[in-house]
Amino acid sequence: MSRILRVAAAQLGPICRDDSREQTLDRLIALLEGAAGAGATLVVFPELALTTFFPRWYMEDREEIDAWFERELPGPSTRRLFERARELGVGFHLGYAELTPAGEHFNSCILVAADGRIVGKYRKTHLPGHAEIDPMRAFQHLEKRYFLPGDTGFPVWRTMGGILGMCICNDRRWPETWRVMGLQGVEMVLLGYNTPSVNSQRSAEGIERRMFHNRLSVQAGCYQNSCWGVAVAKAGIEDGHPLIGGSMIVDPDGFIVAEATGEGDELVLHDCDLDATRFGKETIFAFERHRRTEHYGLITGRTGAIPPPE
Amino acid sequence: MSRILRVAAAQLGPICRDDSREQTLDRLIALLEGAAGAGATLVVFPELALTTFFPRWYMEDREEIDAWFERELPGPSTRRLFERARELGVGFHLGYAELTPAGEHFNSCILVAADGRIVGKYRKTHLPGHAEIDPMRAFQHLEKRYFLPGDTGFPVWRTMGGILGMCICNDRRWPETWRVMGLQGVEMVLLGYNTPSVNSQRSAEGIERRMFHNRLSVQAGCYQNSCWGVAVAKAGIEDGHPLIGGSMIVDPDGFIVAEATGEGDELVLHDCDLDATRFGKETIFAFERHRRTEHYGLITGRTGAIPPPE
Repeated sequence: MSRILRVAAAQLGPICRDDSREQTLDRLIALLEGAAGAGATLVVFPELALTTFFPRWYMEDREEIDAWFERELPGPSTRRLFERARELGVGFHLGYAELTPAGEHFNSCILVAADGRIVGKYRKTHLPGHAEIDPMRAFQHLEKRYFLPGDTGFPVWRTMGGILGMCICNDRRWPETWRVMGLQGVEMVLLGYNTPSVNSQRSAEGIERRMFHNRLSVQAGCYQNSCWGVAVAKAGIEDGHPLIGGSMIVDPDGFIVAEATGEGDELVLHDCDLDATRFGKETIFAFERHRRTEHYGLITGRTGAIPPPE
Repeated sequence: MSRILRVAAAQLGPICRDDSREQTLDRLIALLEGAAGAGATLVVFPELALTTFFPRWYMEDREEIDAWFERELPGPSTRRLFERARELGVGFHLGYAELTPAGEHFNSCILVAADGRIVGKYRKTHLPGHAEIDPMRAFQHLEKRYFLPGDTGFPVWRTMGGILGMCICNDRRWPETWRVMGLQGVEMVLLGYNTPSVNSQRSAEGIERRMFHNRLSVQAGCYQNSCWGVAVAKAGIEDGHPLIGGSMIVDPDGFIVAEATGEGDELVLHDCDLDATRFGKETIFAFERHRRTEHYGLITGRTGAIPPPE
């Protein structure tokens, strides 16, 4: 048996501050069309796929901040993306900055079915960075200033013939992210990222180490939960700040089966057999037979590390 | 500041059924002496370092089974290992099959300080394999027959100038193992393994894939908890059954800094700076700032995976 989902990781090059929404939508739609032309039925765009990574700037003015956020999706400027996807009969995953009617700000993503319905929404749980200017950093990463921690948890959805989940960027480094979805039988995790090519707190950690950590986190999450992973970058020099590329599709055994070669707009395609997740789920990672939750209490019982007394 | 612990991963080649305890102890002591001569103060032996990997055979006779287990450590046949270590002033980690006075059987390991005191004991939590003969497998892996799941949880100990933890073989594939220790501030995890070179349930999964999963699990665990990992194999063709080598020392950034080259008795040494664990623990993996335990409930609340309704 096999359940093939042809997925396109739609890597984006930089979206700079001065790029118009029109230009950005043109690029997203071009990728959508390219993916559909290649037979993909699911297109995965990165985190914050409609704007530059604005948390690198410190802002205080509410109006200036809110200008980066979407009040509705589809909205006036994004409707044509949704319409084109429905015409093409492809589903998609899109990361964006969400401003709710109640005035809450989240780093969010949605999953849209081929018929245009929004079937899932996820709000980023693990916000990296800081909330105030940190003069010790080579550059700022103010996600904790502009976003609330997500309130969705890590749901999964039965859609597109499988069980799909989502997370965003820094979430992928946290095994809890993957395990909570794994415990719901997730077969494919979609995720986008905007990852600076240098560690703002340690300049010696450059692109090679950052790429290594990106791969390590996704590969381990996929292997340990026997699921597919589709990890998609916004890459390249964005407003003077370099972001890693390395968009990839990872199989349920933890191997990279397709990977971006550049740092611009690029499609990475793969036929993902969702039934390939079964072997791992039924053998070495048959959770029911092997997990010992009586010894995991600290994972939920304690937030920070508490070393033993001296 | 730096707190250097010079560690030796003491990989063992096969210990076959017909090898005498005397021969095995000679090998362990030779490795201990070699490590001490090279300035190591901690020597890490693998899982079941005193016997062949006996769970590959089906046994019913209680006496035959119990012959593989240690009733005490140090015992008459192992005392000289403990004495030699104390003379040399080195601590060590040793995996063995434990039979308690109450008649319980565990796959265990101990941590012995340079003064000969047993400072820690751990009993394997995640037992792989099965309890009865499985005719579908190319060979048997009867850990669930001969051992009880460990009852120790994942403690850590302040010893040798740092905070050390232990796990055993299959435990390393489970991120829960690492996280429970990470939440206690672990700085170095010691672990031994006996890992068949072929998946008994999928012959296409040979040594390269098995090595990849070994590395992936340990590297992810170290990176995601910013700790050192010392992973040590019993390797080579043991009683006709091939076991992977690949003993390695992994730094808190997830990189392999030293690795075995063969499948026989071999020492892999590294000066591990325990203070190198601080950067990760204080930045990207500063658990207190970033973890969101309110969304992790399934990890302790559910053992097996429960997919959403069809």
